[in-house]
This record gives sequence, structure tokens and C-alpha cells, in this order.
Amino acid sequence: MLNKTERIDQLYSQNIKIIQSPQVFSFSLDAVLLADFANVPKYGQIYDFCAGNGAVGLFVSAKTKAQIHLVEIQPELADMAQRSVALNHLEAQLTVENQPVQNLTQQLAHDSVDYITCNPPYFRVQELSRQNPNPHLAIARHELKITIEDVIQVSSQVLKTNGKLALVFRPDRLDELFQLFKTYHFAPKRIRFIYPKADDDKDANMVLVEALKNGRPNGVKILKPLFAYNHGQYSSEVQALLYGSNKES
Amino acid sequence: MLNKTERIDQLYSQNIKIIQSPQVFSFSLDAVLLADFANVPKYGQIYDFCAGNGAVGLFVSAKTKAQIHLVEIQPELADMAQRSVALNHLEAQLTVENQPVQNLTQQLAHDSVDYITCNPPYFRVQELSRQNPNPHLAIARHELKITIEDVIQVSSQVLKTNGKLALVFRPDRLDELFQLFKTYHFAPKRIRFIYPKADDDKDANMVLVEALKNGRPNGVKILKPLFAYNHGQYSSEVQALLYGSNKES
Repeated sequence: MLNKTERIDQLYSQNIKIIQSPQVFSFSLDAVLLADFANVPKYGQIYDFCAGNGAVGLFVSAKTKAQIHLVEIQPELADMAQRSVALNHLEAQLTVENQPVQNLTQQLAHDSVDYITCNPPYFRVQELSRQNPNPHLAIARHELKITIEDVIQVSSQVLKTNGKLALVFRPDRLDELFQLFKTYHFAPKRIRFIYPKADDDKDANMVLVEALKNGRPNGVKILKPLFAYNHGQYSSEVQALLYGSNKES
Repeated sequence: MLNKTERIDQLYSQNIKIIQSPQVFSFSLDAVLLADFANVPKYGQIYDFCAGNGAVGLFVSAKTKAQIHLVEIQPELADMAQRSVALNHLEAQLTVENQPVQNLTQQLAHDSVDYITCNPPYFRVQELSRQNPNPHLAIARHELKITIEDVIQVSSQVLKTNGKLALVFRPDRLDELFQLFKTYHFAPKRIRFIYPKADDDKDANMVLVEALKNGRPNGVKILKPLFAYNHGQYSSEVQALLYGSNKES
């Protein structure tokens, strides 16, 4: 059942259908790339923080038999996520929790979660010029309801030792991110930078990071770069993620 | 005048001749890439720490009218650097100081240096398995005489506010590097990762970093990746750095 302004989009590479609304929130390439990057465990408890319309959790579901918990503060988005879970007949594996991520520190035992994914708001509240007048999008993009520090602090408490947190974030805040990892006892282990185009000299505009709780420092791997576009089209890697490898150019 | 085992190599792109010795130390691609990456100022005081046979300082000299001070602890290497400076008739611009970098905190006024380049030892002393039996090479590669923390601490003291430190380092220690920047009041601003090959999936094996003394956080730029080789040859960018742009493929 679709509400007004909603449509169903499909991630063809995984045959997942997602209810989207440009008025409320649409998943973007960030979610597809984070789901691909995340080395989720085969079994156990996975949480997707700031789940939005559920894209990351839905895309990850094919890679694991673990239970996946989608945590989203906005009721409209949590409802869309719930309906997408039903649309894909994944109710046994995925649950949607409409609440602030911060509540989990009261609800979950310490050291109980195996893996966390999160596509958090990227922008600090101070960066007002970028704030979206649409309140749903503003909450998704700006640190109005949760900050990156909240995400890392909650993750540190609920993850098991050697549990992992996978984030997509903005490269310009990489120094802040590393500082927060240090403060909350994470060691960054795998990093991949996303560049907008293969055929120009632009800086990276996204970064994927996997950090290990209670990990030792000095084990950072910088994976091969990922280019979103090449000569005006999605790069072959992104095409494969979106449409499946048989459509790879 | 060449000692036994020495030879003269040339960086054709800049018409710089460098005295090399495989028995003592040879400059490598690291030095060429660091010199290219460093945004040295036109005037003022530049220091090259852990100068080795002087390659970074010599390569940088064409980009600036600043005074360049090459600081090298090993007498044999400082002597080679001095003879290379003479060979290129650059005595008016480059001076060689055969002493530990750590001495500079006693010799230089605080806030007196505009820019520092450094190709430091990459390996911690604990990483014994990688230690070179040749003592000259061991000192150049391992933190036997100076650590990355020493380099950053001395730099923080002698650089002017808004002075910059440009380093080439190993990506696996990126978290330690960021931590030290934070401790000594640097903000990383420009980062470029070097990958061994364009045509495989290998992780980055070097990183170039420029950090700003007393800089504000959250302004990190991740520059386009650099690939050393492509299809078994130097990449066109590296070829241009080594041989000049007219030989670029």
C-alpha cells in the first residue's frame, strides 16, 4: 500500500523492492555502497542505525542469516521501512524499531551486538546554509536528532568486543571521526573513498569506514578507490551494484 | 666526486642530479611524490627532516625561492646530500645540517619555520622482522633514531601558526598519525593515497599528508588517488614526474 507521493524502486542486483518518497526520504547511492562495503557476519545480531526507509538493512539482508534491526526515529520513515520489509517478505529476518538510537543504551545489554551499519546525518547543525527546509530531510541530513558522536558512543556500548561498526560519512570530517573512534575505543580497519568521477581530478565526496571495537591501532587498510561515474555514466562497479553483474559494462 | 658504490642518478623532469648509493641509501618514488605533493611557499624557511641524500629538498628547490634546510642524522648521507647540492650549484638555496632533527627545538625560535617536508622512517622498532641488517638502511626505515611522534612534536614547536607539515607515510598507521596531529595541534588538510597499481585491487601502500599547525578540524580533502604503475609500467602521472611531461604517455 503506497501513500501519496510514494513509489516503489527496485535494486535489481538483489531483487529488493523499496518504498520511496522524494517528499520524505529516498535512498541514495550511499546506502547501496554502505551495504556492499559492510562485511556483515553470517549469524548474530545486526543493527542498522538511522535506517531511514530501510534501504541499507534490506540490501544487506541477502548477505547474511543474522537478525537485522532497523532503528529509525522518524515515524513516517519507519513506517515506509516496515512496509518495504513486508513487500519483500522479510518479516522473519528484519524488524523495524521506531525510536531514537540513543534509547538502545537502556534496552540492550552491553556487548550484545555483532555488527552495526549506519548512514548517519552528515552535516553539523552549524552548517545551516545546507539545512533542508523539509523537516524530514533536514533530520536525515543534519545532526538535529543524533550526532556522529552519539552513533559511535551507542555503538561502543552495545557492540561485542571485536564487533564492528560500518559507516558512510563525509571525508572532510575524517579527523573528527578518527578522534571519536579513539575516544570510544574503536580502531578504524577498512576505509574506502568514493570519488564522484573517474575522469576528473575531483576530491573524494564520501568515505566508507569499518571500525573494530577494542581493536588495536595501526592496522588501517585503504581499499581501492570507488568512482561513482565514468564518462557521464555510472561506473561499471556501481552499475553492477545497482543492476547486477550481468548488466556490468 | 663519487665514493665507491656511488652513482649519479637524474630526475629528468627537473634536471636535478642526485648522488646515490644502494649500499647506503637511494631515493625512491616516495621522495619524488612527496616533493610533488608539497605545496611549499614561494619564500621563507623550509626544512626537510630526515633528508637522506637530499632528494626531497633538491626536487622541491625548483618550486620555490625559499631557503631549504636539509637535516640528516647520518654523516654519510648528509655528505652525499652536500655533494649533490654542489653538483646542482644550489649552495645559495640549500644547506645541509648533519644532526638529529630533535636538536632543532634548541636551535630554532618557536614559530619560525614556514614549511616542513619529511619522509620519515615508516616502521616501528617493534616490527623487527622488517629491519634491515644494513645499519644505514635500518636507520632510514625504522624508528631507531627518530619516531613519527618526534617529527610531529618538533614540527609543532618550530613551525609558524598556519605553517604546514607534509609527510609521506604508511596508510596502516593513519590512525596513529591522526592521533599525533591532534595531540600536537595539527589539522590534516590534504591527503593523497598512493596505490601500487591501477589495474588491480591492491590497497594503498603510501599516503601523502599535509597538516596545518593550529588548523581547525573537519577540513580534510582526499585528493584523487595516485597509481604508481599501470599495466606493468609507471603510470603516466609518475612518468611525467620522473621524465618530464613531454615524455608523458
